Amino acid sequence: MDRLARIEKTLEDAVARGAADGSPPKITEAIRHALFSGGARVRPQLGLAVAEACGDPDPRASAGMAAAIEMLHCASLVHDDLPCFDDADERRGRISVHKAFGEPLAVLAGDALIVMAFETVARGGVASPQRIGGMITSLSRAVGLPHGIVAGQAWESEPDADVSVYHAQKTGALFVGATVGCAIAAGSDPGPWRPLGEKLGAAYQVADDLADAMGGVDDLGKPCGQDEKNGRPTIVAELGLQGAVRKLEMMVRAAADAVPDCNGADELRALVMMQAKRLAPQQAAAKISAA
Amino acid sequence: MDRLARIEKTLEDAVARGAADGSPPKITEAIRHALFSGGARVRPQLGLAVAEACGDPDPRASAGMAAAIEMLHCASLVHDDLPCFDDADERRGRISVHKAFGEPLAVLAGDALIVMAFETVARGGVASPQRIGGMITSLSRAVGLPHGIVAGQAWESEPDADVSVYHAQKTGALFVGATVGCAIAAGSDPGPWRPLGEKLGAAYQVADDLADAMGGVDDLGKPCGQDEKNGRPTIVAELGLQGAVRKLEMMVRAAADAVPDCNGADELRALVMMQAKRLAPQQAAAKISAA
Repeated sequence: MDRLARIEKTLEDAVARGAADGSPPKITEAIRHALFSGGARVRPQLGLAVAEACGDPDPRASAGMAAAIEMLHCASLVHDDLPCFDDADERRGRISVHKAFGEPLAVLAGDALIVMAFETVARGGVASPQRIGGMITSLSRAVGLPHGIVAGQAWESEPDADVSVYHAQKTGALFVGATVGCAIAAGSDPGPWRPLGEKLGAAYQVADDLADAMGGVDDLGKPCGQDEKNGRPTIVAELGLQGAVRKLEMMVRAAADAVPDCNGADELRALVMMQAKRLAPQQAAAKISAA
Repeated sequence: MDRLARIEKTLEDAVARGAADGSPPKITEAIRHALFSGGARVRPQLGLAVAEACGDPDPRASAGMAAAIEMLHCASLVHDDLPCFDDADERRGRISVHKAFGEPLAVLAGDALIVMAFETVARGGVASPQRIGGMITSLSRAVGLPHGIVAGQAWESEPDADVSVYHAQKTGALFVGATVGCAIAAGSDPGPWRPLGEKLGAAYQVADDLADAMGGVDDLGKPCGQDEKNGRPTIVAELGLQGAVRKLEMMVRAAADAVPDCNGADELRALVMMQAKRLAPQQAAAKISAA
Protein backbone atom coordinates (compact mmCIF):
# COMPACT_ATOMS: atom_id res chain seq x y z
CA MET A 1 0.00 0.00 0.00
CA ASP A 2 1.39 3.46 -0.82
CA ARG A 3 1.80 6.15 1.81
CA LEU A 4 -1.39 8.01 1.05
CA ALA A 5 -3.47 4.82 1.10
CA ARG A 6 -1.99 3.81 4.47
CA ILE A 7 -2.85 7.22 5.91
CA GLU A 8 -6.41 7.23 4.56
CA LYS A 9 -7.04 3.69 5.81
CA THR A 10 -5.78 4.50 9.29
CA LEU A 11 -7.93 7.65 9.43
CA GLU A 12 -10.99 5.77 8.13
CA ASP A 13 -10.53 2.95 10.66
CA ALA A 14 -10.24 5.41 13.57
CA VAL A 15 -13.34 7.36 12.55
CA ALA A 16 -15.31 4.13 12.02
CA ARG A 17 -14.33 2.94 15.50
CA GLY A 18 -15.50 6.26 16.97
CA ALA A 19 -18.80 6.04 15.08
CA ALA A 20 -19.57 2.49 16.21
CA ASP A 21 -21.95 1.11 18.76
CA GLY A 22 -24.53 3.84 19.24
CA SER A 23 -22.31 6.90 18.97
CA PRO A 24 -24.19 10.19 18.44
CA PRO A 25 -24.22 10.50 14.63
CA LYS A 26 -23.79 14.25 13.96
CA ILE A 27 -20.38 14.62 15.57
CA THR A 28 -19.01 11.89 13.31
CA GLU A 29 -20.38 13.76 10.30
CA ALA A 30 -18.60 16.88 11.56
CA ILE A 31 -15.36 14.92 12.05
CA ARG A 32 -15.59 13.42 8.58
CA HIS A 33 -16.17 16.89 7.13
CA ALA A 34 -13.01 18.12 8.86
CA LEU A 35 -10.83 15.10 8.15
CA PHE A 36 -11.80 14.11 4.59
CA SER A 37 -11.87 17.43 2.79
CA GLY A 38 -9.15 17.21 0.18
CA GLY A 39 -6.20 18.00 2.43
CA ALA A 40 -2.84 17.13 0.85
CA ARG A 41 -1.75 15.02 3.88
CA VAL A 42 1.62 16.81 3.72
CA ARG A 43 2.59 16.13 7.35
CA PRO A 44 1.65 12.45 7.62
CA GLN A 45 3.25 11.70 4.23
CA LEU A 46 6.43 13.33 5.48
CA GLY A 47 6.19 11.21 8.64
CA LEU A 48 5.78 7.97 6.72
CA ALA A 49 8.66 8.90 4.41
CA VAL A 50 10.85 9.39 7.50
CA ALA A 51 9.72 6.04 8.93
CA GLU A 52 10.53 4.33 5.61
CA ALA A 53 13.95 5.97 5.51
CA CYS A 54 14.47 4.39 8.96
CA GLY A 55 13.44 0.93 7.74
CA ASP A 56 9.82 1.10 9.01
CA PRO A 57 9.95 -2.14 11.03
CA ASP A 58 6.42 -1.68 12.48
CA PRO A 59 4.17 -0.15 9.80
CA ARG A 60 1.15 -0.04 12.15
CA ALA A 61 3.07 2.12 14.60
CA SER A 62 4.24 4.59 11.94
CA ALA A 63 0.79 4.74 10.30
CA GLY A 64 -0.84 5.42 13.67
CA MET A 65 1.65 8.17 14.44
CA ALA A 66 1.27 9.75 10.98
CA ALA A 67 -2.54 9.63 11.09
CA ALA A 68 -2.49 11.19 14.56
CA ILE A 69 -0.49 14.13 13.22
CA GLU A 70 -3.13 14.70 10.52
CA MET A 71 -5.98 14.47 13.07
CA LEU A 72 -4.33 17.15 15.19
CA HIS A 73 -3.74 19.32 12.13
CA CYS A 74 -7.45 19.08 11.23
CA ALA A 75 -8.52 19.66 14.86
CA SER A 76 -6.49 22.87 14.90
CA LEU A 77 -8.13 24.06 11.67
CA VAL A 78 -11.65 23.38 13.03
CA HIS A 79 -10.95 25.35 16.22
CA ASP A 80 -9.07 28.11 14.34
CA ASP A 81 -12.14 28.67 12.14
CA LEU A 82 -14.46 29.23 15.14
CA PRO A 83 -16.14 32.65 15.45
CA CYS A 84 -13.90 33.61 18.40
CA PHE A 85 -10.76 33.12 16.25
CA ASP A 86 -10.87 33.55 12.43
CA ASP A 87 -14.66 33.31 12.09
CA ALA A 88 -14.07 31.62 8.73
CA ASP A 89 -17.05 30.54 6.66
CA GLU A 90 -14.92 28.42 4.34
CA ARG A 91 -12.02 26.00 4.50
CA ARG A 92 -10.46 24.24 1.50
CA GLY A 93 -13.19 25.70 -0.70
CA ARG A 94 -15.95 24.10 1.39
CA ILE A 95 -18.14 25.36 4.17
CA SER A 96 -16.32 25.36 7.53
CA VAL A 97 -17.33 22.88 10.25
CA HIS A 98 -18.97 25.43 12.55
CA LYS A 99 -20.93 26.92 9.65
CA ALA A 100 -22.14 23.50 8.54
CA PHE A 101 -22.77 21.85 11.93
CA GLY A 102 -22.98 24.73 14.42
CA GLU A 103 -20.49 25.94 16.98
CA PRO A 104 -21.12 23.27 19.68
CA LEU A 105 -20.35 20.40 17.30
CA ALA A 106 -17.32 22.26 15.92
CA VAL A 107 -15.84 22.63 19.42
CA LEU A 108 -16.62 18.98 20.18
CA ALA A 109 -15.34 17.67 16.83
CA GLY A 110 -12.01 19.40 17.50
CA ASP A 111 -11.89 17.94 21.01
CA ALA A 112 -12.77 14.47 19.73
CA LEU A 113 -10.05 14.65 17.07
CA ILE A 114 -7.43 15.54 19.68
CA VAL A 115 -8.46 12.55 21.80
CA MET A 116 -8.67 10.27 18.74
CA ALA A 117 -5.10 11.22 17.79
CA PHE A 118 -3.67 9.94 21.06
CA GLU A 119 -5.87 6.85 20.96
CA THR A 120 -4.66 6.10 17.42
CA VAL A 121 -1.02 6.24 18.52
CA ALA A 122 -1.72 3.83 21.40
CA ARG A 123 -3.58 1.42 19.11
CA GLY A 124 -0.95 1.60 16.36
CA GLY A 125 1.81 0.92 18.86
CA VAL A 126 0.33 -2.31 20.21
CA ALA A 127 3.19 -4.42 18.78
CA SER A 128 5.84 -1.90 19.96
CA PRO A 129 4.55 -0.93 23.43
CA GLN A 130 7.95 0.36 24.54
CA ARG A 131 7.70 3.10 21.89
CA ILE A 132 4.24 4.41 22.79
CA GLY A 133 5.47 6.76 25.51
CA GLY A 134 7.93 8.45 23.17
CA MET A 135 5.34 8.80 20.42
CA ILE A 136 2.76 10.27 22.82
CA THR A 137 5.34 12.71 24.13
CA SER A 138 6.35 13.87 20.65
CA LEU A 139 2.68 14.32 19.77
CA SER A 140 1.87 16.33 22.88
CA ARG A 141 4.95 18.53 22.40
CA ALA A 142 3.80 19.30 18.86
CA VAL A 143 0.37 20.42 20.02
CA GLY A 144 0.47 21.54 23.63
CA LEU A 145 2.43 23.91 25.86
CA PRO A 146 5.01 25.35 25.99
CA HIS A 147 5.85 25.24 22.25
CA GLY A 148 3.15 23.45 20.25
CA ILE A 149 0.25 24.62 18.08
CA VAL A 150 -1.88 25.68 21.04
CA ALA A 151 0.97 27.85 22.34
CA GLY A 152 1.30 29.40 18.88
CA GLN A 153 -2.40 30.21 18.74
CA ALA A 154 -2.28 31.56 22.31
CA TRP A 155 0.32 34.14 21.22
CA GLU A 156 -2.54 35.85 19.35
CA SER A 157 -3.96 36.72 22.78
CA GLU A 158 -0.69 38.32 23.95
CA PRO A 159 0.23 41.97 23.36
CA ASP A 160 3.67 41.11 21.93
CA ALA A 161 4.53 38.08 19.81
CA ASP A 162 7.84 37.28 18.12
CA VAL A 163 6.87 36.42 14.54
CA SER A 164 9.39 33.59 14.21
CA VAL A 165 8.36 32.01 17.52
CA TYR A 166 4.71 32.31 16.53
CA HIS A 167 5.36 30.56 13.20
CA ALA A 168 7.58 27.87 14.65
CA GLN A 169 4.81 26.94 17.08
CA LYS A 170 1.74 27.35 14.86
CA THR A 171 3.20 25.52 11.88
CA GLY A 172 6.65 24.10 12.52
CA ALA A 173 5.80 22.14 15.67
CA LEU A 174 3.57 19.67 13.86
CA PHE A 175 6.21 19.05 11.17
CA VAL A 176 8.67 18.28 13.97
CA GLY A 177 6.07 15.99 15.52
CA ALA A 178 5.81 14.16 12.20
CA THR A 179 9.54 13.62 11.70
CA VAL A 180 10.44 12.95 15.35
CA GLY A 181 7.34 10.87 16.14
CA CYS A 182 7.67 8.68 13.05
CA ALA A 183 11.39 8.15 13.67
CA ILE A 184 10.46 6.91 17.17
CA ALA A 185 7.71 4.71 15.66
CA ALA A 186 10.42 3.15 13.49
CA GLY A 187 12.69 2.56 16.49
CA SER A 188 15.28 5.16 15.44
CA ASP A 189 16.99 7.89 17.41
CA PRO A 190 14.67 10.88 16.87
CA GLY A 191 17.28 13.61 17.51
CA PRO A 192 18.73 13.76 13.98
CA TRP A 193 15.22 14.06 12.52
CA ARG A 194 14.24 17.22 14.39
CA PRO A 195 16.04 19.76 12.10
CA LEU A 196 14.26 18.40 9.02
CA GLY A 197 10.86 18.99 10.67
CA GLU A 198 11.86 22.44 11.88
CA LYS A 199 13.20 23.60 8.54
CA LEU A 200 10.41 22.13 6.44
CA GLY A 201 7.80 23.60 8.79
CA ALA A 202 9.44 27.02 8.49
CA ALA A 203 9.54 26.77 4.69
CA TYR A 204 5.93 25.67 4.61
CA GLN A 205 4.87 28.66 6.68
CA VAL A 206 6.59 31.05 4.26
CA ALA A 207 4.91 29.30 1.32
CA ASP A 208 1.56 29.68 3.06
CA ASP A 209 2.16 33.37 3.84
CA LEU A 210 3.17 33.96 0.21
CA ALA A 211 0.05 32.23 -1.08
CA ASP A 212 -2.05 34.34 1.26
CA ALA A 213 -0.39 37.59 0.20
CA MET A 214 -0.16 36.84 -3.56
CA GLY A 215 -3.75 35.67 -3.84
CA GLY A 216 -2.75 32.25 -5.18
CA VAL A 217 -4.35 29.03 -4.05
CA ASP A 218 -3.84 28.68 -0.35
CA ASP A 219 -2.96 25.08 0.46
CA LEU A 220 -5.03 25.26 3.62
CA GLY A 221 -8.03 26.36 1.57
CA LYS A 222 -8.53 29.61 3.47
CA PRO A 223 -9.81 32.62 1.56
CA CYS A 224 -6.65 34.60 0.73
CA GLY A 225 -5.81 37.86 2.48
CA GLN A 226 -6.90 36.44 5.84
CA ASP A 227 -3.60 37.19 7.55
CA GLU A 228 -3.71 40.88 6.62
CA LYS A 229 -7.40 41.07 7.49
CA ASN A 230 -6.72 39.53 10.91
CA GLY A 231 -3.69 41.77 11.50
CA ARG A 232 -1.58 38.66 11.96
CA PRO A 233 2.22 38.79 11.85
CA THR A 234 3.51 37.29 8.56
CA ILE A 235 6.86 36.83 6.88
CA VAL A 236 5.60 38.81 3.88
CA ALA A 237 4.71 41.76 6.09
CA GLU A 238 8.17 41.54 7.66
CA LEU A 239 10.36 40.98 4.58
CA GLY A 240 8.22 42.10 1.66
CA LEU A 241 7.21 39.83 -1.23
CA GLN A 242 10.65 39.45 -2.85
CA GLY A 243 12.37 38.92 0.48
CA ALA A 244 9.89 36.23 1.37
CA VAL A 245 10.42 34.42 -1.97
CA ARG A 246 14.20 34.48 -1.43
CA LYS A 247 13.70 33.19 2.10
CA LEU A 248 11.54 30.33 0.82
CA GLU A 249 14.26 29.24 -1.66
CA MET A 250 16.86 29.15 1.09
CA MET A 251 14.60 27.30 3.47
CA VAL A 252 13.62 24.52 1.07
CA ARG A 253 17.27 23.87 0.31
CA ALA A 254 18.14 23.91 4.02
CA ALA A 255 15.35 21.43 4.73
CA ALA A 256 16.59 19.03 2.06
CA ASP A 257 20.13 19.37 3.43
CA ALA A 258 18.82 18.54 6.92
CA VAL A 259 17.86 14.97 5.96
CA PRO A 260 20.25 12.86 8.03
CA ASP A 261 22.34 10.11 6.44
CA CYS A 262 20.30 6.92 6.16
CA ASN A 263 19.37 4.32 3.53
CA GLY A 264 16.54 6.36 2.06
CA ALA A 265 18.20 9.80 2.32
CA ASP A 266 18.33 10.59 -1.43
CA GLU A 267 14.71 9.72 -2.02
CA LEU A 268 13.63 11.71 1.00
CA ARG A 269 15.62 14.79 -0.14
CA ALA A 270 13.93 14.60 -3.53
CA LEU A 271 10.54 14.34 -1.83
CA VAL A 272 11.25 17.43 0.28
CA MET A 273 12.20 19.49 -2.78
CA MET A 274 9.12 18.29 -4.66
CA GLN A 275 6.68 18.95 -1.82
CA ALA A 276 8.06 22.39 -1.10
CA LYS A 277 7.81 23.38 -4.77
CA ARG A 278 4.25 22.12 -4.99
CA LEU A 279 3.31 24.36 -2.08
CA ALA A 280 4.92 27.54 -3.29
CA PRO A 281 2.95 30.01 -5.41
CA GLN A 282 3.87 29.64 -9.11
CA GLN A 283 6.19 32.64 -9.30
CA ALA A 284 8.11 31.41 -6.27
CA ALA A 285 8.17 27.83 -7.55
CA ALA A 286 9.77 28.94 -10.82
CA LYS A 287 12.53 30.69 -8.89
CA ILE A 288 13.18 27.59 -6.79
CA SER A 289 13.38 25.39 -9.93
CA ALA A 290 15.84 27.79 -11.58
CA ALA A 291 18.02 28.11 -8.49
CA MET B 1 2.38 11.93 50.86
CA ASP B 2 -1.42 11.54 51.04
CA ARG B 3 -3.58 11.13 47.98
CA LEU B 4 -4.62 14.74 47.65
CA ALA B 5 -1.04 15.98 47.99
CA ARG B 6 0.15 13.54 45.30
CA ILE B 7 -2.56 14.76 42.95
CA GLU B 8 -1.85 18.46 43.57
CA LYS B 9 1.88 17.96 43.11
CA THR B 10 1.43 16.10 39.83
CA LEU B 11 -0.93 18.80 38.54
CA GLU B 12 1.43 21.58 39.66
CA ASP B 13 4.42 19.90 38.01
CA ALA B 14 2.57 19.48 34.72
CA VAL B 15 1.39 23.09 34.64
CA ALA B 16 4.86 24.35 35.55
CA ARG B 17 6.38 22.33 32.71
CA GLY B 18 3.84 23.83 30.29
CA ALA B 19 4.60 27.34 31.52
CA ALA B 20 8.37 27.00 31.16
CA ASP B 21 10.79 28.32 28.64
CA GLY B 22 9.01 31.25 27.03
CA SER B 23 5.47 29.91 26.95
CA PRO B 24 2.75 32.54 26.31
CA PRO B 25 1.75 33.57 29.86
CA LYS B 26 -2.01 34.16 29.68
CA ILE B 27 -3.00 30.64 28.68
CA THR B 28 -1.21 29.28 31.75
CA GLU B 29 -3.17 31.73 33.91
CA ALA B 30 -6.36 30.42 32.29
CA ILE B 31 -5.31 26.81 32.89
CA ARG B 32 -4.47 27.53 36.53
CA HIS B 33 -7.84 29.21 36.96
CA ALA B 34 -9.55 26.08 35.60
CA LEU B 35 -7.43 23.52 37.42
CA PHE B 36 -6.89 25.07 40.86
CA SER B 37 -10.32 26.33 41.78
CA GLY B 38 -11.33 24.34 44.82
CA GLY B 39 -12.48 21.18 43.04
CA ALA B 40 -12.87 18.20 45.37
CA ARG B 41 -10.62 15.96 43.20
CA VAL B 42 -13.25 13.21 43.55
CA ARG B 43 -12.19 11.27 40.45
CA PRO B 44 -8.40 11.27 40.90
CA GLN B 45 -8.76 10.40 44.61
CA LEU B 46 -10.94 7.47 43.61
CA GLY B 47 -8.29 6.46 41.06
CA LEU B 48 -5.46 6.58 43.61
CA ALA B 49 -7.57 4.62 46.12
CA VAL B 50 -8.03 1.91 43.46
CA ALA B 51 -4.30 1.89 42.70
CA GLU B 52 -3.54 1.55 46.44
CA ALA B 53 -6.04 -1.28 46.78
CA CYS B 54 -4.04 -2.97 43.97
CA GLY B 55 -0.71 -2.46 45.79
CA ASP B 56 0.35 0.67 43.84
CA PRO B 57 3.75 -0.66 42.72
CA ASP B 58 4.54 2.43 40.59
CA PRO B 59 3.20 5.54 42.33
CA ARG B 60 4.36 7.86 39.52
CA ALA B 61 2.26 5.93 37.02
CA SER B 62 -0.88 6.02 39.17
CA ALA B 63 -0.40 9.70 40.05
CA GLY B 64 0.03 10.57 36.37
CA MET B 65 -3.10 8.65 35.45
CA ALA B 66 -5.13 10.20 38.28
CA ALA B 67 -3.96 13.74 37.49
CA ALA B 68 -4.80 13.21 33.81
CA ILE B 69 -8.38 12.30 34.77
CA GLU B 70 -8.69 15.58 36.70
CA MET B 71 -7.23 17.59 33.80
CA LEU B 72 -9.81 16.13 31.43
CA HIS B 73 -12.59 16.81 33.92
CA CYS B 74 -11.53 20.46 34.15
CA ALA B 75 -11.10 20.72 30.36
CA SER B 76 -14.68 19.51 29.92
CA LEU B 77 -15.95 22.12 32.39
CA VAL B 78 -14.12 24.95 30.61
CA HIS B 79 -15.56 23.97 27.22
CA ASP B 80 -19.04 23.26 28.71
CA ASP B 81 -19.12 26.81 30.08
CA LEU B 82 -18.47 28.40 26.65
CA PRO B 83 -21.18 30.68 25.24
CA CYS B 84 -22.15 28.07 22.62
CA PHE B 85 -22.94 25.53 25.37
CA ASP B 86 -24.02 26.63 28.86
CA ASP B 87 -22.84 30.25 28.54
CA ALA B 88 -22.02 30.13 32.26
CA ASP B 89 -20.58 33.20 33.93
CA GLU B 90 -19.59 31.28 37.07
CA ARG B 91 -18.07 27.95 38.03
CA ARG B 92 -17.39 26.82 41.61
CA GLY B 93 -18.42 30.26 42.81
CA ARG B 94 -15.79 32.00 40.73
CA ILE B 95 -15.86 33.69 37.35
CA SER B 96 -15.73 31.15 34.50
CA VAL B 97 -12.62 30.87 32.32
CA HIS B 98 -14.15 32.44 29.21
CA LYS B 99 -15.56 35.34 31.25
CA ALA B 100 -12.19 35.97 32.89
CA PHE B 101 -9.85 35.38 29.95
CA GLY B 102 -12.03 35.62 26.85
CA GLU B 103 -13.39 32.92 24.59
CA PRO B 104 -10.20 32.27 22.54
CA LEU B 105 -8.14 31.47 25.64
CA ALA B 106 -10.97 29.35 27.07
CA VAL B 107 -11.07 27.20 23.93
CA LEU B 108 -7.27 26.94 23.95
CA ALA B 109 -7.01 26.24 27.69
CA GLY B 110 -9.42 23.31 27.25
CA ASP B 111 -7.41 22.03 24.28
CA ALA B 112 -4.14 22.41 26.18
CA LEU B 113 -5.54 20.52 29.18
CA ILE B 114 -6.61 17.60 26.97
CA VAL B 115 -3.12 17.40 25.49
CA MET B 116 -1.49 17.83 28.91
CA ALA B 117 -3.51 14.90 30.25
CA PHE B 118 -2.09 12.46 27.70
CA GLU B 119 1.40 13.88 28.14
CA THR B 120 1.13 13.43 31.92
CA VAL B 121 0.22 9.75 31.53
CA ALA B 122 3.21 9.18 29.22
CA ARG B 123 5.57 10.95 31.64
CA GLY B 124 4.17 9.19 34.71
CA GLY B 125 4.53 5.81 33.01
CA VAL B 126 8.22 6.16 32.23
CA ALA B 127 9.17 3.34 34.63
CA SER B 128 6.29 1.12 33.41
CA PRO B 129 6.39 1.71 29.64
CA GLN B 130 4.46 -1.48 28.89
CA ARG B 131 1.43 0.01 30.71
CA ILE B 132 1.30 3.34 28.88
CA GLY B 133 -0.74 2.04 25.94
CA GLY B 134 -3.44 0.67 28.23
CA MET B 135 -3.57 3.86 30.28
CA ILE B 136 -3.81 6.05 27.15
CA THR B 137 -6.59 3.84 25.79
CA SER B 138 -8.59 3.98 29.03
CA LEU B 139 -8.19 7.77 29.06
CA SER B 140 -9.29 8.23 25.46
CA ARG B 141 -12.29 5.93 25.97
CA ALA B 142 -13.35 8.04 28.93
CA VAL B 143 -13.28 11.26 26.92
CA GLY B 144 -13.69 10.53 23.22
CA LEU B 145 -16.03 8.68 20.89
CA PRO B 146 -18.07 6.54 20.90
CA HIS B 147 -18.90 6.62 24.66
CA GLY B 148 -16.84 9.26 26.47
CA ILE B 149 -17.56 12.79 27.73
CA VAL B 150 -17.43 14.31 24.24
CA ALA B 151 -20.02 11.79 23.02
CA GLY B 152 -22.22 12.66 25.99
CA GLN B 153 -21.99 16.37 25.25
CA ALA B 154 -22.64 15.69 21.54
CA TRP B 155 -26.00 14.08 22.45
CA GLU B 156 -27.16 17.62 23.28
CA SER B 157 -26.96 18.32 19.53
CA GLU B 158 -29.14 15.31 18.64
CA PRO B 159 -32.96 15.40 18.49
CA ASP B 160 -33.35 12.31 20.71
CA ALA B 161 -31.11 11.32 23.61
CA ASP B 162 -31.57 8.45 26.05
CA VAL B 163 -31.15 10.04 29.48
CA SER B 164 -29.23 7.10 30.95
CA VAL B 165 -26.84 6.92 27.99
CA TYR B 166 -26.32 10.68 28.18
CA HIS B 167 -25.46 10.50 31.89
CA ALA B 168 -23.26 7.43 31.57
CA GLN B 169 -21.17 9.24 28.98
CA LYS B 170 -21.13 12.77 30.40
CA THR B 171 -20.37 11.71 33.98
CA GLY B 172 -19.85 7.97 34.34
CA ALA B 173 -17.19 7.57 31.66
CA LEU B 174 -14.59 9.56 33.57
CA PHE B 175 -15.21 7.59 36.77
CA VAL B 176 -14.64 4.41 34.76
CA GLY B 177 -11.49 5.97 33.33
CA ALA B 178 -10.30 6.62 36.90
CA THR B 179 -10.89 3.09 38.21
CA VAL B 180 -9.83 1.22 35.05
CA GLY B 181 -6.88 3.47 34.23
CA CYS B 182 -5.47 3.43 37.76
CA ALA B 183 -5.88 -0.37 37.99
CA ILE B 184 -3.80 -0.60 34.78
CA ALA B 185 -1.27 1.87 36.24
CA ALA B 186 -0.92 -0.52 39.20
CA GLY B 187 -0.41 -3.52 36.91
CA SER B 188 -3.76 -5.12 37.76
CA ASP B 189 -6.43 -6.61 35.54
CA PRO B 190 -8.74 -3.61 34.90
CA GLY B 191 -11.90 -5.62 34.12
CA PRO B 192 -13.11 -6.10 37.73
CA TRP B 193 -12.71 -2.36 38.37
CA ARG B 194 -15.07 -1.19 35.65
CA PRO B 195 -18.38 -1.76 37.54
CA LEU B 196 -17.18 0.38 40.47
CA GLY B 197 -16.51 3.30 38.13
CA GLU B 198 -19.81 2.85 36.33
CA LYS B 199 -21.91 2.65 39.48
CA LEU B 200 -20.15 5.46 41.30
CA GLY B 201 -20.38 7.69 38.23
CA ALA B 202 -24.10 7.00 37.99
CA ALA B 203 -24.61 7.74 41.70
CA TYR B 204 -22.60 10.92 41.36
CA GLN B 205 -24.76 12.11 38.47
CA VAL B 206 -27.92 11.59 40.52
CA ALA B 207 -26.37 13.52 43.42
CA ASP B 208 -25.49 16.34 41.04
CA ASP B 209 -28.99 16.42 39.53
CA LEU B 210 -30.50 16.47 43.03
CA ALA B 211 -28.27 19.33 44.09
CA ASP B 212 -29.26 21.24 40.98
CA ALA B 213 -32.98 20.64 41.50
CA MET B 214 -33.02 21.14 45.31
CA GLY B 215 -31.05 24.34 45.17
CA GLY B 216 -28.35 22.96 47.46
CA VAL B 217 -24.66 23.50 46.89
CA ASP B 218 -23.74 22.02 43.54
CA ASP B 219 -20.42 20.22 43.81
CA LEU B 220 -19.44 21.44 40.36
CA GLY B 221 -20.08 25.01 41.47
CA LYS B 222 -22.64 25.73 38.78
CA PRO B 223 -25.49 28.07 39.61
CA CYS B 224 -28.37 25.75 40.54
CA GLY B 225 -31.35 25.25 38.25
CA GLN B 226 -29.07 25.15 35.18
CA ASP B 227 -30.35 21.78 33.99
CA GLU B 228 -33.97 22.93 33.97
CA LYS B 229 -33.00 26.25 32.40
CA ASN B 230 -31.10 24.44 29.65
CA GLY B 231 -33.93 21.93 29.12
CA ARG B 232 -31.48 19.13 29.83
CA PRO B 233 -32.65 15.59 30.61
CA THR B 234 -32.18 14.85 34.34
CA ILE B 235 -32.97 11.99 36.69
CA VAL B 236 -35.07 14.35 38.83
CA ALA B 237 -37.20 15.32 35.82
CA GLU B 238 -37.61 11.64 35.05
CA LEU B 239 -38.26 10.18 38.52
CA GLY B 240 -39.31 13.13 40.66
CA LEU B 241 -37.43 14.29 43.74
CA GLN B 242 -38.28 11.36 46.01
CA GLY B 243 -37.65 8.82 43.30
CA ALA B 244 -34.24 10.35 42.64
CA VAL B 245 -33.31 10.24 46.35
CA ARG B 246 -34.28 6.55 46.52
CA LYS B 247 -32.28 5.88 43.38
CA LEU B 248 -29.23 7.59 44.89
CA GLU B 249 -29.39 5.38 47.99
CA MET B 250 -29.50 2.25 45.90
CA MET B 251 -26.71 3.40 43.65
CA VAL B 252 -24.28 4.27 46.44
CA ARG B 253 -24.78 0.85 48.00
CA ALA B 254 -24.38 -0.85 44.61
CA ALA B 255 -21.14 1.07 44.02
CA ALA B 256 -19.71 -0.01 47.39
CA ASP B 257 -20.73 -3.60 46.64
CA ALA B 258 -18.95 -3.41 43.29
CA VAL B 259 -15.50 -3.06 44.90
CA PRO B 260 -13.78 -6.31 43.89
CA ASP B 261 -12.05 -8.48 46.44
CA CYS B 262 -8.53 -7.22 47.09
CA ASN B 263 -6.31 -6.29 50.03
CA GLY B 264 -7.73 -2.80 50.42
CA ALA B 265 -11.38 -3.66 49.67
CA ASP B 266 -12.88 -2.72 53.05
CA GLU B 267 -11.16 0.66 53.18
CA LEU B 268 -12.21 1.38 49.61
CA ARG B 269 -15.86 0.46 50.32
CA ALA B 270 -15.86 2.84 53.28
CA LEU B 271 -14.38 5.59 51.11
CA VAL B 272 -17.06 5.09 48.47
CA MET B 273 -19.85 5.40 51.06
CA MET B 274 -18.24 8.49 52.57
CA GLN B 275 -17.64 10.26 49.25
CA ALA B 276 -21.13 9.56 47.99
CA LYS B 277 -22.70 10.90 51.19
CA ARG B 278 -20.59 14.02 51.04
CA LEU B 279 -21.88 14.73 47.55
CA ALA B 280 -25.56 14.20 48.24
CA PRO B 281 -27.74 17.12 49.29
CA GLN B 282 -28.32 17.05 53.07
CA GLN B 283 -31.81 15.57 52.97
CA ALA B 284 -30.62 12.76 50.73
CA ALA B 285 -27.50 12.20 52.84
CA ALA B 286 -29.60 11.74 55.98
CA LYS B 287 -31.61 9.04 54.23
CA ILE B 288 -28.45 7.27 53.12
CA SER B 289 -27.03 7.33 56.67
CA ALA B 290 -30.25 5.93 58.10
CA ALA B 291 -30.47 3.19 55.49
